[in-house]
Amino acid sequence: MGSADRIHLVGSTSIALGYDRDIHALAGAIQVSEFDQATAVTERTPADAVIDAVIDAVFDATVHEGWDIGGPANGGYLLALATRAMATAAHRPPLTVTAHYLAPVTPGPIEIVVRAVRSGRRMATLSATMIRDQTAVLEVLGTFAEQRDDAVVLCDATPPDLVPYDRCEVPVIRDDAAIPALQRRLAVRLRAGDEGFAFGRPTGRAEIAGWFAFADGSAIDAIGLMLVADAFAPPIFNSGLAMGWVPTVELTVHVRAEPEPGPLACVFGSRFIQGGLLEEDGEIWDTAGRLVAQSRQLALIPRA
Amino acid sequence: MGSADRIHLVGSTSIALGYDRDIHALAGAIQVSEFDQATAVTERTPADAVIDAVIDAVFDATVHEGWDIGGPANGGYLLALATRAMATAAHRPPLTVTAHYLAPVTPGPIEIVVRAVRSGRRMATLSATMIRDQTAVLEVLGTFAEQRDDAVVLCDATPPDLVPYDRCEVPVIRDDAAIPALQRRLAVRLRAGDEGFAFGRPTGRAEIAGWFAFADGSAIDAIGLMLVADAFAPPIFNSGLAMGWVPTVELTVHVRAEPEPGPLACVFGSRFIQGGLLEEDGEIWDTAGRLVAQSRQLALIPRA
Repeated sequence: MGSADRIHLVGSTSIALGYDRDIHALAGAIQVSEFDQATAVTERTPADAVIDAVIDAVFDATVHEGWDIGGPANGGYLLALATRAMATAAHRPPLTVTAHYLAPVTPGPIEIVVRAVRSGRRMATLSATMIRDQTAVLEVLGTFAEQRDDAVVLCDATPPDLVPYDRCEVPVIRDDAAIPALQRRLAVRLRAGDEGFAFGRPTGRAEIAGWFAFADGSAIDAIGLMLVADAFAPPIFNSGLAMGWVPTVELTVHVRAEPEPGPLACVFGSRFIQGGLLEEDGEIWDTAGRLVAQSRQLALIPRA
Repeated sequence: MGSADRIHLVGSTSIALGYDRDIHALAGAIQVSEFDQATAVTERTPADAVIDAVIDAVFDATVHEGWDIGGPANGGYLLALATRAMATAAHRPPLTVTAHYLAPVTPGPIEIVVRAVRSGRRMATLSATMIRDQTAVLEVLGTFAEQRDDAVVLCDATPPDLVPYDRCEVPVIRDDAAIPALQRRLAVRLRAGDEGFAFGRPTGRAEIAGWFAFADGSAIDAIGLMLVADAFAPPIFNSGLAMGWVPTVELTVHVRAEPEPGPLACVFGSRFIQGGLLEEDGEIWDTAGRLVAQSRQLALIPRA
């Protein structure tokens, strides 16, 4: 990491020395700016480290078969696994969790190493590393806390307009092999037309809405919401712009309420696709019409 | 953390034993569900830990005076400090960064301990802990990568409707002491009317838009975008619902392009205020009309 005591300034900084000006004078800054001064950092030797990361708990788990989308396990499923370990260590359910995806993970054993960052009266912050064969495959940072069942103060949005779950049509997919394994675990029912991408008829808008439920009818808790946040087909498929593997770089889920029993009304959309990356935003609502989670991810655009 | 080899199932799980059913049968799940089985985790003793967190670099830095909003340093400023250390260690600018705020930070010395999680050809993932007096005050997880200057594939939004920066009116605030110190470092100019909250005339909508620039005219790079993401007054102020200190729990910033030189057009809004928490979404655009960053934070509602 280089020698100690050097000043590092990354970005639009330059040195206020005349003879260096041609090289260092970048747009609008001919000397070190207030902001750059105020955010200067000086590296020193790691031996001086004042804290050691404390490992608080190690968990064994298994990435099960059948939670994949054509090989690698679903990203929401992996996040649920890590979040369950963290929630166990925190003795609290997840409130806001962010995962960075480091490598695809196939079924088989994993370890989850959990570190306590801070434990407060209401909130606990922890980080976790999911490990396969001594290699980190997922890194997670999260804050855990019980939900407060206060009244909704402001809700400037509505659930997606879906026909009731029981009357929601399930499209007939003739080629059974085309259904990702994950979808057999789930009983997702899409908004009419939103299945179009799977039949060569994308809607033209990067949005997919529908109901989420488990195929075995089990209830969806805060850990389950981690899966919901990444369980739908990428909305870019309905834009008609691209199909294929959409590797998640980062996924953040905010849990905003305990879901009421029953299926969840979900809508996912992408508004910004540029620089080889797409953003995907999700809103998840329960049958009582309350927002139970928001999600956002940054992912790589599928290769043509 | 309890003894080893126990199975932990957090959430809507229950035990498939008849005599336990009254206690354990929760909504829709009278036995352990497929999902709960597939996400089961087993704790073992920390001594079995297979990896140690590797500290890759330690940085000294100073939380400067004048970047605060009435005492504690601004959250975006703290994130910029941590991100500069991480970018230095990564030799790459930030792409997506998430911070969890653990404690308010006043001016003075800090340390930033950086750990490499994964270093790939294009992307590097790192975590960092900001430390004051041997206490963690900020925990950050980020992925760092150069921007790819590919064409915009999809942009389903427009920059906020602002009059050009030079013609944007600066509201006269008579009580100079009422201006947070941070705002003296900046040359923010709000959309007409959006300053209303400061004069007892909130717009009635939880949204604030305006131009961001540094008072010293310096350019805004990817590190600067971390500050921009938290430099405006909380949009909840314009809802008329609450004023006061809005402590950030978590802030995520996606950098989507290198900003063109010049001020940045920003819009921040809150759509979901419930359970004692608010979500705040930001979009940051450069003068070329390109989205350069998206932000989202989860924060505590100000106490009445």
